[in-house]
Amino acid sequence: MLDATLALLSEAGYARLTVEGVAAASGVHKSTLYRWWPDKAALAADALASRMDTGPLPDTGSTRDDLTTWLRGTIANYTATPAGATMPALIADLAGRPGALEAFRAAFLTERRANCAAVLRRGIARGDLPADTDVELFMDALAGAVFYRQLVTGLPVDDRLPDRLVRILGL
Amino acid sequence: MLDATLALLSEAGYARLTVEGVAAASGVHKSTLYRWWPDKAALAADALASRMDTGPLPDTGSTRDDLTTWLRGTIANYTATPAGATMPALIADLAGRPGALEAFRAAFLTERRANCAAVLRRGIARGDLPADTDVELFMDALAGAVFYRQLVTGLPVDDRLPDRLVRILGL
Repeated sequence: MLDATLALLSEAGYARLTVEGVAAASGVHKSTLYRWWPDKAALAADALASRMDTGPLPDTGSTRDDLTTWLRGTIANYTATPAGATMPALIADLAGRPGALEAFRAAFLTERRANCAAVLRRGIARGDLPADTDVELFMDALAGAVFYRQLVTGLPVDDRLPDRLVRILGL
Repeated sequence: MLDATLALLSEAGYARLTVEGVAAASGVHKSTLYRWWPDKAALAADALASRMDTGPLPDTGSTRDDLTTWLRGTIANYTATPAGATMPALIADLAGRPGALEAFRAAFLTERRANCAAVLRRGIARGDLPADTDVELFMDALAGAVFYRQLVTGLPVDDRLPDRLVRILGL
């Protein structure tokens, strides 16, 4: 069901995704889908999250290298899956529905952010980052630069970005 | 016509905005609207841009203060107008239409980014920022952090954010 959702997202985009279409493509009854997901937003969020690499990051001893690795994973999640292209329509669909937005964050953000926060806290402990670094805001700047570049400015999201961005952030 | 568009965006959101609705609310024929704007995306972009403060920033001599001022303006543009709430649906609507996306960027981004770039270049000239600073990416991190926070993580976009963010970016 998640694979069928991803295939439909890639082919036709979020606006044209329907729970009925996923049911037809995966050969299950739509009541089965509704048993697990309340709506297409929840289904799309879980489908996108299922393709994300969320494993903990190895501690190489270099805050800079570990953050660059995390950022490469973030970029891959946005560009090598339909996640980046789906995000605006999905977020627009979640607006004003706090429960759905929370479920999206739990599926999509929580684990990867916890991994990044661990890298930043090690960096603070090592003295690579100031002790009073706002870890949450630092992560918003990292992920936000990629997100904004892909969705708003359209500037390249390429292999040189992680290194350059980590440098801008003082590492 | 732009005021009517903004009022409708505030009340009902982008998904329910129609050129017909703007025509009715502003008392003009819809053919008049279509003479100026090809579709509701272009109309919404111009309406949102009409409320943005895009004047050049005074050079106070402090890169940190000038950037904080720019960031305060960016936050006001996202939060004090329907721009922040409209953005995901508007961007989703522009996807795959390069001409429309370019027009949106011209209305919404170009001038404010030029102002920010001027601040950053003064900062480089003064030695407050490294000579090889990637000015475009720096701006994506600044604006992207606000954008991502408002649309994705939902963490507070408040008065303390500009100062904290500028510090994370090494100033």
